[in-house]
Amino acid sequence: MNTSKDTHQNQFANKAQAWSARFSEPVSDLVKRYTASVDFDQRMAVHDIQGSLAHAEMLAHCGILSADDLKAIQSGLAQVLQEIEAGQLQWSIDLEDVHLNVEKRLVELVGDAGKRLHTGRSRNDQVATDIRLWLREQIDLIVEQLIALRRVLAEQASEHTDTIMPGFTHLQVAQPVTFGHHLLAYAEMFERDTERMLDCRKRVNRLPLGAAALAGTSFPIDRERVARTLGFDGICRNSLDAVSDRDFAIEFCAASALVMTHISRLSEELVLWMSPKVGFITLADRFCTGSSIMPQKKNPDVPELARGKSGRVTGHLVALLMLMKAQPLAYNKDNQEDKEGLFDTADTVRDTLTIFVDMMNGVTVHAQSMRDAARQGFATATDLADYLVKKGLPFRDAHEVVAHAVLTCEKRGCDLPDLTLEDLKGFHPSIESDVYQVLTLEGSVNARDHLGGTAPAQVAQAAKAAIERAK
Amino acid sequence: MNTSKDTHQNQFANKAQAWSARFSEPVSDLVKRYTASVDFDQRMAVHDIQGSLAHAEMLAHCGILSADDLKAIQSGLAQVLQEIEAGQLQWSIDLEDVHLNVEKRLVELVGDAGKRLHTGRSRNDQVATDIRLWLREQIDLIVEQLIALRRVLAEQASEHTDTIMPGFTHLQVAQPVTFGHHLLAYAEMFERDTERMLDCRKRVNRLPLGAAALAGTSFPIDRERVARTLGFDGICRNSLDAVSDRDFAIEFCAASALVMTHISRLSEELVLWMSPKVGFITLADRFCTGSSIMPQKKNPDVPELARGKSGRVTGHLVALLMLMKAQPLAYNKDNQEDKEGLFDTADTVRDTLTIFVDMMNGVTVHAQSMRDAARQGFATATDLADYLVKKGLPFRDAHEVVAHAVLTCEKRGCDLPDLTLEDLKGFHPSIESDVYQVLTLEGSVNARDHLGGTAPAQVAQAAKAAIERAK
Amino acid sequence: MNTSKDTHQNQFANKAQAWSARFSEPVSDLVKRYTASVDFDQRMAVHDIQGSLAHAEMLAHCGILSADDLKAIQSGLAQVLQEIEAGQLQWSIDLEDVHLNVEKRLVELVGDAGKRLHTGRSRNDQVATDIRLWLREQIDLIVEQLIALRRVLAEQASEHTDTIMPGFTHLQVAQPVTFGHHLLAYAEMFERDTERMLDCRKRVNRLPLGAAALAGTSFPIDRERVARTLGFDGICRNSLDAVSDRDFAIEFCAASALVMTHISRLSEELVLWMSPKVGFITLADRFCTGSSIMPQKKNPDVPELARGKSGRVTGHLVALLMLMKAQPLAYNKDNQEDKEGLFDTADTVRDTLTIFVDMMNGVTVHAQSMRDAARQGFATATDLADYLVKKGLPFRDAHEVVAHAVLTCEKRGCDLPDLTLEDLKGFHPSIESDVYQVLTLEGSVNARDHLGGTAPAQVAQAAKAAIERAK
Amino acid sequence: MNTSKDTHQNQFANKAQAWSARFSEPVSDLVKRYTASVDFDQRMAVHDIQGSLAHAEMLAHCGILSADDLKAIQSGLAQVLQEIEAGQLQWSIDLEDVHLNVEKRLVELVGDAGKRLHTGRSRNDQVATDIRLWLREQIDLIVEQLIALRRVLAEQASEHTDTIMPGFTHLQVAQPVTFGHHLLAYAEMFERDTERMLDCRKRVNRLPLGAAALAGTSFPIDRERVARTLGFDGICRNSLDAVSDRDFAIEFCAASALVMTHISRLSEELVLWMSPKVGFITLADRFCTGSSIMPQKKNPDVPELARGKSGRVTGHLVALLMLMKAQPLAYNKDNQEDKEGLFDTADTVRDTLTIFVDMMNGVTVHAQSMRDAARQGFATATDLADYLVKKGLPFRDAHEVVAHAVLTCEKRGCDLPDLTLEDLKGFHPSIESDVYQVLTLEGSVNARDHLGGTAPAQVAQAAKAAIERAK
Repeated sequence: MNTSKDTHQNQFANKAQAWSARFSEPVSDLVKRYTASVDFDQRMAVHDIQGSLAHAEMLAHCGILSADDLKAIQSGLAQVLQEIEAGQLQWSIDLEDVHLNVEKRLVELVGDAGKRLHTGRSRNDQVATDIRLWLREQIDLIVEQLIALRRVLAEQASEHTDTIMPGFTHLQVAQPVTFGHHLLAYAEMFERDTERMLDCRKRVNRLPLGAAALAGTSFPIDRERVARTLGFDGICRNSLDAVSDRDFAIEFCAASALVMTHISRLSEELVLWMSPKVGFITLADRFCTGSSIMPQKKNPDVPELARGKSGRVTGHLVALLMLMKAQPLAYNKDNQEDKEGLFDTADTVRDTLTIFVDMMNGVTVHAQSMRDAARQGFATATDLADYLVKKGLPFRDAHEVVAHAVLTCEKRGCDLPDLTLEDLKGFHPSIESDVYQVLTLEGSVNARDHLGGTAPAQVAQAAKAAIERAK
Repeated sequence: MNTSKDTHQNQFANKAQAWSARFSEPVSDLVKRYTASVDFDQRMAVHDIQGSLAHAEMLAHCGILSADDLKAIQSGLAQVLQEIEAGQLQWSIDLEDVHLNVEKRLVELVGDAGKRLHTGRSRNDQVATDIRLWLREQIDLIVEQLIALRRVLAEQASEHTDTIMPGFTHLQVAQPVTFGHHLLAYAEMFERDTERMLDCRKRVNRLPLGAAALAGTSFPIDRERVARTLGFDGICRNSLDAVSDRDFAIEFCAASALVMTHISRLSEELVLWMSPKVGFITLADRFCTGSSIMPQKKNPDVPELARGKSGRVTGHLVALLMLMKAQPLAYNKDNQEDKEGLFDTADTVRDTLTIFVDMMNGVTVHAQSMRDAARQGFATATDLADYLVKKGLPFRDAHEVVAHAVLTCEKRGCDLPDLTLEDLKGFHPSIESDVYQVLTLEGSVNARDHLGGTAPAQVAQAAKAAIERAK
Repeated sequence: MNTSKDTHQNQFANKAQAWSARFSEPVSDLVKRYTASVDFDQRMAVHDIQGSLAHAEMLAHCGILSADDLKAIQSGLAQVLQEIEAGQLQWSIDLEDVHLNVEKRLVELVGDAGKRLHTGRSRNDQVATDIRLWLREQIDLIVEQLIALRRVLAEQASEHTDTIMPGFTHLQVAQPVTFGHHLLAYAEMFERDTERMLDCRKRVNRLPLGAAALAGTSFPIDRERVARTLGFDGICRNSLDAVSDRDFAIEFCAASALVMTHISRLSEELVLWMSPKVGFITLADRFCTGSSIMPQKKNPDVPELARGKSGRVTGHLVALLMLMKAQPLAYNKDNQEDKEGLFDTADTVRDTLTIFVDMMNGVTVHAQSMRDAARQGFATATDLADYLVKKGLPFRDAHEVVAHAVLTCEKRGCDLPDLTLEDLKGFHPSIESDVYQVLTLEGSVNARDHLGGTAPAQVAQAAKAAIERAK
Repeated sequence: MNTSKDTHQNQFANKAQAWSARFSEPVSDLVKRYTASVDFDQRMAVHDIQGSLAHAEMLAHCGILSADDLKAIQSGLAQVLQEIEAGQLQWSIDLEDVHLNVEKRLVELVGDAGKRLHTGRSRNDQVATDIRLWLREQIDLIVEQLIALRRVLAEQASEHTDTIMPGFTHLQVAQPVTFGHHLLAYAEMFERDTERMLDCRKRVNRLPLGAAALAGTSFPIDRERVARTLGFDGICRNSLDAVSDRDFAIEFCAASALVMTHISRLSEELVLWMSPKVGFITLADRFCTGSSIMPQKKNPDVPELARGKSGRVTGHLVALLMLMKAQPLAYNKDNQEDKEGLFDTADTVRDTLTIFVDMMNGVTVHAQSMRDAARQGFATATDLADYLVKKGLPFRDAHEVVAHAVLTCEKRGCDLPDLTLEDLKGFHPSIESDVYQVLTLEGSVNARDHLGGTAPAQVAQAAKAAIERAK
């Protein structure tokens, strides 16, 4: 039995030269760079060590590893972790990935015990475990930020329950709404995003370790113990699936693409609202930049960039779906391509949400501009139609009557409330002087007083409930 | 007050000529065709009527509609439904979409009562309601078929708990697995798909009706009543969000893209397994076609086509994400583009799953071919390494020892069990005659006897549980 | 030798029952529907017949087919074509696709001669030929429409060489530009699209016929003759590649995705310009629709829908790329999925361009609104900086001086030309009274008088040249 | 006139604090990181300097810059370049991007002359120029590598003009082909890729500089002079288009996605051919890696990874298309998102092609395995049908006759040439003893002796021509 600490006897010894005794030539530098992942997967080092500790503890518990070896591994990994955090570990591309780099250093530090750590596992289940641990952490951070953003939006909404702006459809003025109501629409979107992230988390949080290369291992391991140690909700029930499954990454990217879609919609509006022709809001200077040539410019860079980043995340989603398409079981090297897009997706979503929390908090609202704009475009035409319906006209006929009234206004260059009662009666005899109440902006928004409607009373209640749910 | 049944006075009367009194020219035929959706949205007619009935019932309950009008609407819609089912309704492109076609016919049948149906709603919330009703139905059908496919796979698995085949990684022989174990990997995938569809259903099953155009309505409606009538879990809490949200469609397409990814992986393997060089299975003739020129061909058309269709569904997902990107609130006409891709996605998934249930049921397994293939490629090399570890060698050293043994076998053109004990001892002195047990295929698979492992005992249990969950 | 006209002896006879004598069971109805393409590929019938005629003529020329058989095939196909055009051909899903439907009818009409048509070819090269013929035709139509759209834009531009509007970056007012200049930016985009379509056409226009199933044929065919007959620029040089290549379809979809990207950008601006807060243009009524609930609405439906359709085309592109990913040579059934997305892409691009030609022709320009908007946002700030540079200041210092001036204006609520000379001199002593010339809108645009600049003189010349190139 | 070298007066002075005098607060660190591009765009530093030199030379030529200033700028930029190449330049995130970093250093070195460099240009046209210069270089490198790969494939093909392998359709044995013929199919694909890259290069190689921010500049610049200096084929004809156009990047990514699609198809086959059940080839060890757990494994890592990377590039294409969707003119900050995906696309394509040139050169072909496989699956059935046609049978009847013969062989477990003449005559009386010639593999491939066919003579000629075109 070889108990030497001399690592030159083992598999890693001449890794730079050839993969194992079975290989007759080394990989070229370009191939090395092309196939290595250590440049980007080293960010999972903490999770790799976390997983290894749980694995080793289980091996010892099951009698596969001696107590001494476990102790050696624990202290060795603690030191490796320290070295990584201190930026002292020399990452080597010859050792391909984070797993071999960590293990190589461990073996240097503790010898044979380190070489025993890989008993009963393979890099296939090891990397799957690391990604899941990493992604679970990211999801938790993202959920936190989604909640923070919802809170900011709801709080802003509660301050603008009766700030009237034009509600647009087709970018045409449709009906007056309150700015608070508008903001709460986004709070709804981000609340669905929160739900989706949490649903996704359930499927991320299952343990692949123990699947080994693809078929399980001949050692009497206890997978559920490892799952408990690492805080997983359960284990992946099939070893072939465990090493080849990347559903969770795709689902996360799909959920992220929706987050970014909502961000891009909000951004589109912020850019529009900041445009001088609209002028509904001003973003704080710290989210804008100037021009290298036009001294007067203050550009809404952050929302524009965020809008652009929605493409990036959808691109990563497509890349992952295409990656997995038609891959036979079980693990194929293609899967190494799962990481960079996934990492970038999480980074993009986290950074964007963090900035938006701060940015939405600092929006300056120009209530008068909003109100002025709501007076354009015959925003209360529907109210007139509803008025006629209440007087007994079928809706479809009322709609037609109002169309005639609007046409007249357009020709005269005035708004509906500017018409005289006589004029209005000309369109339909049932119109009385009480019509002017429904033609005001306040009359219009106050009238929409049901669950989900834009009436200030409803918006106040909705904002309060949204704040409550975002705690 | 106009109570005439003469529809020539109302909004639809000259729809073919111009949109309303406000429009001075009709749309051209191409524009009509370009903007109309009735060709594809008429498949939601049943849901449109379902939604209208619930809306009308609520209007009457809230005193917005008279009991007589309600009765007229109910009997009118019943007749429209009958006409649609009998293929008698003349769908008109002049009436743009399913909603106006149905309503126009209703007004023809019952006059003013029909014109009152649209009170308190808009096409914006109406179409959103229809799609959700339609999609909920589709999800239920898909979930049923996913469960059926899981059952077929699990039943097949339970018949092949000890049929040994080579487990592949990188399409190289890795370790022996059982065919049942392999099939259960797919059952796992489709079980996650089931979960995702059900999670998606929660977000589909919320009622947008009552949002009207975007801001709610001035009529005292009861949205929760409508939600109950239509079997929704709740209402969309914000009217602006209600009419502009298409998250649910995107989430459904993302879940569907994953279903098709799994189908494409299974298809890839079926095609591979049918290839004469592999010969693991035969598909029933009814899933194959021949060649117009090569008389000997029997081509696995169905799995190939299904594999190709994974691209189609991902394409629809991308189309929808791009569609929603940067759309300002609330409803924009862009949204009309949400339907065709969504419809095609559901059709594709449903048809594919239905066929796969039947096809997987009729797979003929060539167990001997599988077994023969498992003998190639040194499938039990890991078992030898594990054996050495149990003898005390650190795993990394054992790995290197076995690499030398494999190299020797390769040179001699033999497999590991073909080496003499003396040969084996030459690689490491700790090897004893008991090594031959671990080098057999049965020894190898039986050894992987833990949760998720490929041991026949484990597979039998897993198959049984999977069947149970697919009931 | 069997010369009977009795088609019951041949391959098609019991097609509905089983593929050939080699198949023991028929395909089910669902499988039939799932695998058949006749529903969508019948639109290539004309091209199928065109290709068959050229193939038959070559066979006869090379002595593979008798003159009598050729004559029979020619008259038979003429009749089939007639039947198709008259809508009399009974398309049968049992016969899978357009090719077998046409051939079956031909055999019914002319017996054995018809059965000889498929000599030396396969459906694999036949379908590839049909698609290329069809797509070549579509490209020619699209190029025509791109040119027409460029002409309309350039003509509009030539009428607006000195209509001043604000040029935006980041949707903030940047510098004044002319509306003609703005329109010509789109003419440039569509000119690049034209180039790309023509580049793509070169690669579409190569003949795959003669590749047979994948390896060529044992008959002494003359592929270059067929290429000449059908107007192809050359032949596909490798038979395996000929039947499996779908590059041309992907390249076409990529070029189309760019067309639609440009359309979506133009649409975004049209929608924005139609918004009451901006009011730069009005679209003709025939490209707009109203609302079912808001009587005042006139919505820019066509540009919105077109904007949405950009997602659809990108989706088809993704579907095709994913379809071809990792397909082994040569033909696989997956490829049947190439058609629907391709057809829809061409239809979408053609319809959209046709409508835009008409729509852009009918845009009403509100020059005063544009001019008023250009006065907002300190549009001539860069001109002031340039003025200072011409006085000797380094540009970077000039930029900073102007920033101070703008800040002052902002505080005072005025524009740069509203400052007194004294005020201006306060920012930099070199400013003289001639500064007011550069601060006017006309001064600003006229100053940008170089190739590609916005000066009316330049725009007039550019418009003229663009009209010339669009002839 | 301010001629001070004191940079503290100018725009960059307090860049870290606020954008310009107009901004009241600095951007936060996260916003800085979020909006800065210097981390990834510094790789364009050489092109930025190249562009600046050409711009300065033109300014001097046109009398906008003094000869002394030009000299100062030239020597200053030379030093900046040197510092960059030596890794000495301190890139600062406060200066956002490569442009401001380079310019800031220049101003430090040469003072006011440096501040004059930005005269008549903006970062908008500057960055567009830099990307085009960079991308042109990348295209040239990629074209070189595509040609090298085509040469390797064609040379390999010329060594295997008569190495017979089974030609597959649907992964079923279809007809025998030669390995050289198969390799040339890929040479065709990469030749089309070369064409596409060169077509794309035409549109990349146009000069945007001179467009300034969006409208051109008030300085009398000579854009065509700059274009000549920088080797551009022409100038972007419209300034608004010049700064907002990213078509060229999208077109490049689309062309790259096709390159990677071809790589993925070739990779799929390499992986398949390396699988022990197929065993057609062996890849050199330096393109494979082993397993951390299975000592016998030699995995085709490089083709698998390359196959996976096809998703990545398609993802970048989607990201760019989505990025540009519906962006109004002219420049928006979204566009900054164009770079990372573009850079990664070029890197991926270059690295992959470089490795494939080497890898395809080192493929070991197992001719006997190929030949053995071609004997399976009735590869010469079509030849028998063609034989019957030459005896006078209509093709469709011949097809049916052979189907019966194949059925018989299948039942007996033999191949077509194993049937006795009597047996064969039983299927059709016209069969004579000369039939055996067409049933051999050599007979079959030799018979396909026309342009594009698999006959060794044709393949030899095609390979020779392909080598010629790849010089």
